[in-house]
Amino acid sequence: MQVKNIISENNFVETLCRNLKRSTLQVNKLNESDAEIISLPGTSVMMAVTTDVISEEIEKGLYTDPYQIGWMAVMVNASDISAVGAEPLGLLLNETFKENDTPEFISEIQRGINDACGATGFFVLGGDTNFSSVRQFGATAIGLINDDKVVTRKGCREGDLVYISGYAGRGSAYALTKIYETGKNIKYMPESRIQHGKIMRKYASCCMDTSDGVITTLDQLMRVNKKGFIIDAKPDEYIDTESIEMAKLVQKSPLIMLAGQHGEFELVFTVNEKDNDAFLKEAKIIGWNPIRIGKVCREIKINIAADEIIYYPDSARIRNLLSETKGNTEEYIQELFKIFSF
Amino acid sequence: MQVKNIISENNFVETLCRNLKRSTLQVNKLNESDAEIISLPGTSVMMAVTTDVISEEIEKGLYTDPYQIGWMAVMVNASDISAVGAEPLGLLLNETFKENDTPEFISEIQRGINDACGATGFFVLGGDTNFSSVRQFGATAIGLINDDKVVTRKGCREGDLVYISGYAGRGSAYALTKIYETGKNIKYMPESRIQHGKIMRKYASCCMDTSDGVITTLDQLMRVNKKGFIIDAKPDEYIDTESIEMAKLVQKSPLIMLAGQHGEFELVFTVNEKDNDAFLKEAKIIGWNPIRIGKVCREIKINIAADEIIYYPDSARIRNLLSETKGNTEEYIQELFKIFSF
Repeated sequence: MQVKNIISENNFVETLCRNLKRSTLQVNKLNESDAEIISLPGTSVMMAVTTDVISEEIEKGLYTDPYQIGWMAVMVNASDISAVGAEPLGLLLNETFKENDTPEFISEIQRGINDACGATGFFVLGGDTNFSSVRQFGATAIGLINDDKVVTRKGCREGDLVYISGYAGRGSAYALTKIYETGKNIKYMPESRIQHGKIMRKYASCCMDTSDGVITTLDQLMRVNKKGFIIDAKPDEYIDTESIEMAKLVQKSPLIMLAGQHGEFELVFTVNEKDNDAFLKEAKIIGWNPIRIGKVCREIKINIAADEIIYYPDSARIRNLLSETKGNTEEYIQELFKIFSF
Repeated sequence: MQVKNIISENNFVETLCRNLKRSTLQVNKLNESDAEIISLPGTSVMMAVTTDVISEEIEKGLYTDPYQIGWMAVMVNASDISAVGAEPLGLLLNETFKENDTPEFISEIQRGINDACGATGFFVLGGDTNFSSVRQFGATAIGLINDDKVVTRKGCREGDLVYISGYAGRGSAYALTKIYETGKNIKYMPESRIQHGKIMRKYASCCMDTSDGVITTLDQLMRVNKKGFIIDAKPDEYIDTESIEMAKLVQKSPLIMLAGQHGEFELVFTVNEKDNDAFLKEAKIIGWNPIRIGKVCREIKINIAADEIIYYPDSARIRNLLSETKGNTEEYIQELFKIFSF
């Protein structure tokens, strides 16, 4: 059985990389890990490295508070390091300011960066600063893995339990408040999952963060693993209350909060049943309650339980919607609303 | 004796970093190395890491050819890794395209990246792609140092010989042809200095690349080392012929080709006289002729021999000129012309 439909983002990345030679030291394949994992020659250590820049989120008005921009510039990268369960080493910043940015604006960006470094355990090792007519803030984050247990997006088996590290939905709900007038405010400041990731790595068979929302994550894991997912937890067990309320406000199923391309930066991962007790025991020690949402199944399909129905998302369409609507966010939301009109 | 005048770029970076905690694993201090050098815990290996993004060069029309942009996105980072003499490991790309960039444009960018990777020995490990109204292309490059010989911008002593890895001037000359109508064409595609850097590291007391031009490099080395430089080589011994011709064309001293903030990506480094024979011998094996341009002196001052005079550049002014002219490149060149009207 083959997964149909091309994902335009994956396709674009594959085109970019078509002629690039890959390093023999690289453990993971293209699109199969949140962070690149590299065996360091002359050592028994592996390096996890990732880069992510916040660009569209600023240009489209999703992030306007400079503290939040600084926080997110670190957090989007820390999240990828969490998803492979590596120990934070440090990061390099890429900051593009506008020529006339005020000292207060700049200092708030740096305060957000500093606080996110404190929360995740990263140090700023260096960086590059530019000035342009369009702002951009990002980083490259580096972590270390000191044993040979590697977790990537690939490796789950039929019957494995599916977990999410915390409540889902806030990424979509927040984006909705910023683009579509809802009269509500949603706080958006994703927390560090570094400690959770380190425990997850010991027990998980695959993992991916929800930086692009839960449905995108499940779709990508489905493609990489050639397995499907039965998400049978009730929506209110894993979608946060405010996001469910927001769905009610726009008269849509709460599942719409899993579909937006602006995610909540939780980890979705799978654990074999035999490792489950040990996993939950260790999670409990740090006061973490990972939420079990379903199971890996053989059929390459995603199905999600809603109130009275089972929903089979057209996850390829959901992932391609942003490029389909050519980055027009209002049109994007209208199309998303149509999809969730059940 | 104190070096006066604040360098606005250094000052800005210091402001950005004021509240950021530094990692105890970091070997170099702020602004004292081209690449950050980190001891990797649990190993005897050091990592060299750097990030640089091409933004202003594209926005101001300095780079228009997509192949050149791709080449430079790799080369600006490889150059920093060369300046600490590390072994290339890999790099992560940061690419910001415009929504309507054609497949041909994109493929030329990637071809430039691929060729520069081949020339330097880097592999693309991963990356991040964005779409915006303004293009940006950059990377984070990672190298390894397998022994404990570290070369940074700091460490030269009075009497050390000053070298440049190849001819200077082409960065300034090229920029002049792109901004100021000269009717001449200068090819600009800096070569890999990775192999040269690895030899340099064995013998040098300090090193910095000329990414911002030779005078900026000497000024920064002067500040970090609290030493001065007597550059007594004749200009035509180390400034390339085309750049000297370009200086004649605009009726300026050839030394103006050392002053532009768009550099040629050579390495400026210092070697103690006792190591000089061994250094030159090893350089010869790879067919490299490093150019000796002067000596380190006690007085914290730069002096450069021109035809009949000795020139003491106001290197702080030269470095600050771009921010002084607020990024207006034509005004910048007019001011630079005034400085070199001797």
